[in-house]
Amino acid sequence: MSPGLAAVYRVRSDASSIEDRARAIAVEQSVEMPVSAIEDDYILSSIVGRVVAIEPREEGIFEVRIALAAETVGQDPGQLVNMLFGNTSIHDDVVLHDAEIPAELMKWFGGPRHGLSGLRQKVGARARALTCSALKPQGLPPEKLAALAEKFARGGVDYIKDDHGLADQAYSPFAARVQAIAPALRAVEQAIGHAARYVPSLSGDLDCMRRQAAVAREFGIDTLMVAPMISGLSNFHRLVRDNPDLAFVAHPAMAGAARIDPAFLFGTLFRLLGADAVVFPNHGGRFGYSPETCRAIARAALADRAGMRPSMPTPAGGMSLERVPEMLDFYGKDTMLLIGGALLAERERLVEATAAFVAAVERHGHG
Amino acid sequence: MSPGLAAVYRVRSDASSIEDRARAIAVEQSVEMPVSAIEDDYILSSIVGRVVAIEPREEGIFEVRIALAAETVGQDPGQLVNMLFGNTSIHDDVVLHDAEIPAELMKWFGGPRHGLSGLRQKVGARARALTCSALKPQGLPPEKLAALAEKFARGGVDYIKDDHGLADQAYSPFAARVQAIAPALRAVEQAIGHAARYVPSLSGDLDCMRRQAAVAREFGIDTLMVAPMISGLSNFHRLVRDNPDLAFVAHPAMAGAARIDPAFLFGTLFRLLGADAVVFPNHGGRFGYSPETCRAIARAALADRAGMRPSMPTPAGGMSLERVPEMLDFYGKDTMLLIGGALLAERERLVEATAAFVAAVERHGHG
Repeated sequence: MSPGLAAVYRVRSDASSIEDRARAIAVEQSVEMPVSAIEDDYILSSIVGRVVAIEPREEGIFEVRIALAAETVGQDPGQLVNMLFGNTSIHDDVVLHDAEIPAELMKWFGGPRHGLSGLRQKVGARARALTCSALKPQGLPPEKLAALAEKFARGGVDYIKDDHGLADQAYSPFAARVQAIAPALRAVEQAIGHAARYVPSLSGDLDCMRRQAAVAREFGIDTLMVAPMISGLSNFHRLVRDNPDLAFVAHPAMAGAARIDPAFLFGTLFRLLGADAVVFPNHGGRFGYSPETCRAIARAALADRAGMRPSMPTPAGGMSLERVPEMLDFYGKDTMLLIGGALLAERERLVEATAAFVAAVERHGHG
Repeated sequence: MSPGLAAVYRVRSDASSIEDRARAIAVEQSVEMPVSAIEDDYILSSIVGRVVAIEPREEGIFEVRIALAAETVGQDPGQLVNMLFGNTSIHDDVVLHDAEIPAELMKWFGGPRHGLSGLRQKVGARARALTCSALKPQGLPPEKLAALAEKFARGGVDYIKDDHGLADQAYSPFAARVQAIAPALRAVEQAIGHAARYVPSLSGDLDCMRRQAAVAREFGIDTLMVAPMISGLSNFHRLVRDNPDLAFVAHPAMAGAARIDPAFLFGTLFRLLGADAVVFPNHGGRFGYSPETCRAIARAALADRAGMRPSMPTPAGGMSLERVPEMLDFYGKDTMLLIGGALLAERERLVEATAAFVAAVERHGHG
């Protein structure tokens, strides 16, 4: 078996069954047929998955490492996730915890084209944490979204992303939204000298996402958001490859991360495919992630990997101004803080609330 | 709020918290911001999700129905699943159980272009159940896969699908595979008069899947397999729309169906987007589905829906010849039985084992 591809699962099992269960997963994720019926030596020695380690973890949970053949993946991200978890995702006793990915595949996927430092550079930040907010609610027409964006920008925020619910709806078509928001931000830039970046959210099939990327490009936008688990990982990676000059923010929608370890999915896999920033639910907000999970996501996004740029950890999901110092203590400066609803709740004080958010980050950065 | 779009969740909660939790989901899946901060009347009345029913189910589980605005979806399948489950998929206390989909959207998605009766017609079957097998293991070169396909065809099977692990690997590139298998099956057809249908599996990004579909078409193939949760639902639907003359088999890889009800995902959503057959794990095989789950999937795939063709329920996953009568008693004749490994395990008796499978189905059909 060629070295390098391995899936790491956490399996719910008792000690007497785990070896059989591990072997069954190894077969399911490789040849998916009775091994006794395989005649071909190459397949038996090189393609059939091999259980390389079983270690007990917490009560009733085992970590199982299975070596798979890199040849089964080719160079396709969709096929990678198919080989790592395709059929096994249907079993509810298994979580995909991590994977070892061969160096050659890592190189082909290529990771972030801009990454942490690229996102800082775009907004003229040096070492501080970045700030981000979100345009919502759904249902607002482009002019009202542009008015919100203008206020965020006047408050000095670095990035302004679409709510991931904003797609290409009749009340706010993608092109009309970009056409309204991009010039509004340029006007603010001319007025106050600070350029906030608008990050529109792409949706639809690959053709549709390409058309949207082209529209965004036409209006001078250089950062885009995609939900890779909705677009399909292969299509996300195709957009990254075809647009090396654009930065990509990965959104966690449909990640169903209870069944795939969030640190692996967001911090490793999305990064590997080119996410310059990965949005994930912060602990203590609307989602149930623990501080340990969040730290693991951020660590994976930033981990030293030969030749690969770090991705910007972007905790979000019910964050507030009051939590900024605590979050910065927790994540350090290599982070982009995303506060949406809590700023929008300030209504007519939106510019001031945004400015307070920005100031809190800058103060902490210099402290 | 425009009528018709509603998500139905099963939520783990205690009775004292369920109302708050339901409201939180309604907000998360619509405006994703504090409702108190929304000024716009249209958004408050038409876009914010509304809890319309909460019903206790089994101990500690509630069924929650939330009305959503159809306008938030537009016409995009990816955005549909984003609105139904995008962020909420990250919460592990919620399963997406079902959805009501507006008639207009149903019409646009369109369901199977061929469906149950189209798949029967292609292979000259009248009312009987269909038979299907799978080419494996991974790692075999095209000629060996073609030799297997030939044996299945000589045994009289109706459809021969790629193992979903077969993609575009060096040891068996998609084009070389199709080029080897299609003429092998035509030769069998000329010899014995029965045409088995080869169903190759598409992979990669949308461009890549399109190229593969074009190659398949060139070799006279009229039925294709896609894993919609890997390709992205929008891209799957795009392929269906662009190729109305081809039939599509939906594979459950990466469906992680523990978090989305399998009957909804396979039987309703995949069907709605145009799956002519839906492959799913049968009870009592390698996967943990109960008979009730399998019956619900088949029922959803076949359910009478105005103007929409039924999709062919295709139970699979560790099935054997011995189970054919029991499966036919369970599913009736509106099914395609898929047996792969158990036939391949017969090795040099593959033609005879396939013929026995085919005969068992025919016998039952006339019984």
